[in-house]
Amino acid sequence: MTLEEKQAQLVGFWVDQGDELVAPMAGEKKTSTRYEDATAHGIGHLTRVYGTRPVDPIERAQWLWGEQARLQRETRLGIPALVHEECLTGLAAWQAATFPTPLAWGASFDPELVEEVGRAIGSSMRTLGIHQGLAPVLDVVRDPRWGRVDECIAEDPLLVGTVGTAYVRGLQSEGVHATLKHFVGYSASTAGRNHAPVHAGRREIEDVLLPPFEMAVREGGVRSVMNSYTDIDGVPVAADPYYLDEVLRGRWGFDGVVVSDYFAVDFLQSMHHVAADSAQAAALAITAGIDVELPSPDAYTTLATQVRDGSLEQSILDRAVGRVLTQKEELGLLDADFTVAPAAIELDSPEHRALARRLAEESIVLLSNDGVLPLDASGAPRIAVIGPNADSAEALMGCYSFVNHVLAHHPEVPAGIALPSVLDGLRAELPAATITHVVGGEVEGEDRSGFPAAVTAAGEADVAIVVVGDRAGLFGRGTVGEGNDVDSLELPGVQRALVEAVVATGTPVVVVALTGRPYALDWALPHRESGAGLTAGLGSVNSPAPSGSAATEKRSLPAAVLQAFFPGEEGGPAVAAVLSGAIAPSGRLPVSLPRSAGVQPYSYLHPALGGRTDVSSVDPSPARPFGFGLGYTTFTHEQLTADATVGAGAEFRASVLVRNSGSRAGTDVVQLYAHDEVASVARPVAQLIGFQRVSLEAGAEQRVEFTVPTERLAFTGVDGVRRVEPGRIRLWVGGACDDEETSTAIEIVG
Amino acid sequence: MTLEEKQAQLVGFWVDQGDELVAPMAGEKKTSTRYEDATAHGIGHLTRVYGTRPVDPIERAQWLWGEQARLQRETRLGIPALVHEECLTGLAAWQAATFPTPLAWGASFDPELVEEVGRAIGSSMRTLGIHQGLAPVLDVVRDPRWGRVDECIAEDPLLVGTVGTAYVRGLQSEGVHATLKHFVGYSASTAGRNHAPVHAGRREIEDVLLPPFEMAVREGGVRSVMNSYTDIDGVPVAADPYYLDEVLRGRWGFDGVVVSDYFAVDFLQSMHHVAADSAQAAALAITAGIDVELPSPDAYTTLATQVRDGSLEQSILDRAVGRVLTQKEELGLLDADFTVAPAAIELDSPEHRALARRLAEESIVLLSNDGVLPLDASGAPRIAVIGPNADSAEALMGCYSFVNHVLAHHPEVPAGIALPSVLDGLRAELPAATITHVVGGEVEGEDRSGFPAAVTAAGEADVAIVVVGDRAGLFGRGTVGEGNDVDSLELPGVQRALVEAVVATGTPVVVVALTGRPYALDWALPHRESGAGLTAGLGSVNSPAPSGSAATEKRSLPAAVLQAFFPGEEGGPAVAAVLSGAIAPSGRLPVSLPRSAGVQPYSYLHPALGGRTDVSSVDPSPARPFGFGLGYTTFTHEQLTADATVGAGAEFRASVLVRNSGSRAGTDVVQLYAHDEVASVARPVAQLIGFQRVSLEAGAEQRVEFTVPTERLAFTGVDGVRRVEPGRIRLWVGGACDDEETSTAIEIVG
Repeated sequence: MTLEEKQAQLVGFWVDQGDELVAPMAGEKKTSTRYEDATAHGIGHLTRVYGTRPVDPIERAQWLWGEQARLQRETRLGIPALVHEECLTGLAAWQAATFPTPLAWGASFDPELVEEVGRAIGSSMRTLGIHQGLAPVLDVVRDPRWGRVDECIAEDPLLVGTVGTAYVRGLQSEGVHATLKHFVGYSASTAGRNHAPVHAGRREIEDVLLPPFEMAVREGGVRSVMNSYTDIDGVPVAADPYYLDEVLRGRWGFDGVVVSDYFAVDFLQSMHHVAADSAQAAALAITAGIDVELPSPDAYTTLATQVRDGSLEQSILDRAVGRVLTQKEELGLLDADFTVAPAAIELDSPEHRALARRLAEESIVLLSNDGVLPLDASGAPRIAVIGPNADSAEALMGCYSFVNHVLAHHPEVPAGIALPSVLDGLRAELPAATITHVVGGEVEGEDRSGFPAAVTAAGEADVAIVVVGDRAGLFGRGTVGEGNDVDSLELPGVQRALVEAVVATGTPVVVVALTGRPYALDWALPHRESGAGLTAGLGSVNSPAPSGSAATEKRSLPAAVLQAFFPGEEGGPAVAAVLSGAIAPSGRLPVSLPRSAGVQPYSYLHPALGGRTDVSSVDPSPARPFGFGLGYTTFTHEQLTADATVGAGAEFRASVLVRNSGSRAGTDVVQLYAHDEVASVARPVAQLIGFQRVSLEAGAEQRVEFTVPTERLAFTGVDGVRRVEPGRIRLWVGGACDDEETSTAIEIVG
Repeated sequence: MTLEEKQAQLVGFWVDQGDELVAPMAGEKKTSTRYEDATAHGIGHLTRVYGTRPVDPIERAQWLWGEQARLQRETRLGIPALVHEECLTGLAAWQAATFPTPLAWGASFDPELVEEVGRAIGSSMRTLGIHQGLAPVLDVVRDPRWGRVDECIAEDPLLVGTVGTAYVRGLQSEGVHATLKHFVGYSASTAGRNHAPVHAGRREIEDVLLPPFEMAVREGGVRSVMNSYTDIDGVPVAADPYYLDEVLRGRWGFDGVVVSDYFAVDFLQSMHHVAADSAQAAALAITAGIDVELPSPDAYTTLATQVRDGSLEQSILDRAVGRVLTQKEELGLLDADFTVAPAAIELDSPEHRALARRLAEESIVLLSNDGVLPLDASGAPRIAVIGPNADSAEALMGCYSFVNHVLAHHPEVPAGIALPSVLDGLRAELPAATITHVVGGEVEGEDRSGFPAAVTAAGEADVAIVVVGDRAGLFGRGTVGEGNDVDSLELPGVQRALVEAVVATGTPVVVVALTGRPYALDWALPHRESGAGLTAGLGSVNSPAPSGSAATEKRSLPAAVLQAFFPGEEGGPAVAAVLSGAIAPSGRLPVSLPRSAGVQPYSYLHPALGGRTDVSSVDPSPARPFGFGLGYTTFTHEQLTADATVGAGAEFRASVLVRNSGSRAGTDVVQLYAHDEVASVARPVAQLIGFQRVSLEAGAEQRVEFTVPTERLAFTGVDGVRRVEPGRIRLWVGGACDDEETSTAIEIVG
């Protein structure tokens, strides 16, 4: 291979790139290289062939097959391009299914189902000739102010790792390579600002942020990884061989390809200022371990020249090229046949929709309920459906959905998939009800002119459902999503005031929050005793309150609050099914529900001094903790038992008796937490070490078994080595991370 | 020495300790050891002999001389106790002078004056038989939410180090050992919560938080250091030999004594849970390098036993004892004569008060002024003086002042020093004015019942002066101070509403903020163009606005805003002198004036991606930047020149022409900033590398020279080594960190 042929394999080309902001700085960073020139010596990747503009997938596939055949025919080596695409909430292509956002995956606590979703997405991609998907996001949530929280799975590394690895397995089972992003640290940026510096020590990176990536590499066999845009303690990850090479390959044995996040190589000079020019940026990045520059030829166009003039070792170039060619061989690209393009494909089949529906249903979190839910459908109730998200299709989807990511720039183009809103869902779900719909207000802005109509509608109804929340978008378009960070965690705009105005009517109000991040909803929720040591009190927080006087007293609060993280194309009917009681809510908070932006950053994974203490006047405790979620029945957890001792490095067993103590069937997420009572470094007061979804009929009970590798309790010692330390570990099961309903202890022996 | 005699030298005893919260957990942690028992084998320190209760200093000195003589006489070795005391804003003793809080020292940019203050404090201490002062605080401000920000000097390490080292020199010049605290990391606790974990990488610690300590050790010859309560990335500093031994002693050559912050040894087991019991905590701490446990015998009571049973090496014990005895010898304690106690001492002499006055005057920062200041005293103006801090003595002082720290628990005891309020100061300063005083509201709480009277008084006045701000206290008493962290940076209580109500009268309003932290005052300030590249626009932000129509337009804003960080016992007259124009304001912001809590943490020392960017919707820029402050005249800065090249490790010279371009005499703080344009790690967009106070008559000019060691531009490379890196450095001088009024560049050569 010539140096130019090698260089060509290390870059992508963004065929369709326009001025739309579908990537950071995409407008400014548009490549000036002509496609013909960029592909003269072959090309590494084709970038977002389907996901940049609304194109007919079949027409585009035919174009793509032709292009691949042309590359085989007209370039000297005849190597086809690897085609990559976004696929976080489904294939980012027109007419393709849009699944719930990853935060909803986390809320479902159901990796098996997420694996099925990954498989469905992978199948569509492979059929369209796409080889690599830029998902999943394995960033552990560290600050809800960040706009990309909706792309993340949870604030717990085990949950992120388990669910994310399931997605990897699903996608890759169809022959499409998954891409872990953003390796590593992105979610821990200062104050949740996009691309801002990460203030974190090595131990926090190792013990909180890296484990999901390690799991997806070691257990998921992922084939690609994408860097984080950020610096960590001053060193941009895109220039840091420690993470990209030493940890990823040296320690974990990863042998796939590392791709740059879009424009991240050039950002080393333009944003981080650790390189004087693009050439220096390219040399830093490829030396550190960025094999492929995306989305288009930019800094890596200097590589051949740098090898020629001796400023870059050829072995560095060859290392990256070897990895890319190996990947193309694995994908079967080196001897692929591009003579027959697909003639038809269903990207939003009934199977897709059923999966989307099920994941949406499992992900909805009931935060409070005074008994108003499930809705009493007897006697043709009058229901006022209010709020900016009540009849919004966009409110169902995250910022990487095709609709919100791409179609926002093409308002004349229909979504291409059915997107029934919550209102649509309610009308279908409750045919006997009299449903009135009033928008009442917008997601953003200060306009309260719709409030009076909303108040009137609520006053005339038996129950009001107020659907509030976010609008996902990118870089200033929307309230959450890439670039849409916040310095307040109040609901955007005047939505809180809208809810309060409707509540003031006295009509019972059900708030449905369709959001991409957890908001400060404490004002809408009844007081909950903190769960620290809260064994006896569990029933009062985890079960519906008695009706009657207690309910009446609470009329200054919404009667119920339902949290749905962007639930996808079937989210409207799923929410309606939960409201009606056709489906019992079973989601659990994958992130702490905060009380304010002013106490951030906050994570439930804090040591004792990171929580409420006697030495600070500020209590950072969330409004509802990680793992919290109500149902339409109640569950009790008793008789937690575990092996008395376990060797460091071995597994131990634990089991707990779970009983459906209520009067309806339901699904519990049984959560096993641990605390290392005395350790050589400060350890979190609670850490999820196991979870299982369990469905039980009313009155039924089941002993749920966990097998827990002690590695889940490993941490990085004072000496910088990550290991399992001997000592006593307290274990508990309960309705949230802070709820020690039943507890025991084990001893890890050295 | 017996093991018991050695152990006794490693602990303090808090003679007077009661239940008052004058230290964290002081109530709970009261020692049960009797004084007689604790001193049977001698004692290392006596803790806060003067500073715990209001005692007559001379009576107490007589008691202390007697006790020291008793220790000489009745213990086998006859070693007197080292007596330590708080002295942050002056000796913490009844009737002693109270100087401005350290944030005001920073605002003065006047290390020479702070050295004089340190000398005055040291002189009082030495006379009273106190050998060690628990000051200065060298924590670099990282988050204004933290309650102890008022104890810190600045958010810039050079300013902290220079001013803090000056204090050390002053105190130690009188034979009293200074104590650097809190070594290291305390100010970077999560979300500014007291004692919360520090999420920071090694590089941030090395390049931002350690330099002031290094300067005070190497250049100030400080004799004692106190640990930070916090953990850094999981490892509590009190148990970390890296900082306490390797850096402090190994790298910097410190050979004094490390004392524990109060109760910090036991906190290793009770708060950090890195030790199973007090004995393990003691072993961890003394091994790491904590020589003396304060305030009372607690965990270190186990040391002798541990040596005896072999669980602690005797050499570790001996190391600490050797250091303590060396310190006592240095202090002359080993052969001190305690026969004659002082019979009289003046702790608040005219010299003290003159120093307090001068530092207060130099520290007041004028944030905005439409021309209303200085007040027009001609024609007997009617002045309404309003606000909870207008006639408050407490509002003049920080949380470590004796009045706010100790006398708060003894409301029946008078302050013992004159504490003229701002109102008192104004009455004295403006005898011809008709001054009315209305409180209007409280510092805390929601009570607005005083607003109408305030509005009426303002309406009948020519000008209204509204004095708002903080009340310093500890652990829930007050709005700022130790343990009084916040999750909002709005002025406490309803004070903003009070100001707005008074402004609405149309009477020109001067807001005076007496605070311990910077608050979000953007609503009270006119729009300022950000200084990024702001050369031409400087005049518009740094000079008084023209009177007339522009001033009239601004009547929805206060006419002027004055920021005084707790200005001490002479703060009232100092503020009045600035308002009258007798003194021209010359303070500069030592911390960024924030716009909200929701963008925190924020420091001006951020790399490009830590500020306003195109990739985040949140702009963290402050309302007014570090270094900002107006005067009653204007200064221009021109013709910045510097050596073209300088060797790494050498010094370079720079000079700038400063001109008083206004019509009054005044004092400028000439600030030299630098930016390393391309570096191997992400470097701050601005960094203070030199400053000088310069007083000039109207129209006068002066060329100000700087000699800058390139070490000020050192940083920790990717390899973990701190060094000066070759490359181009942009330099500028202007009215704040972001104001490049005149600029040049130098090349550092390797």
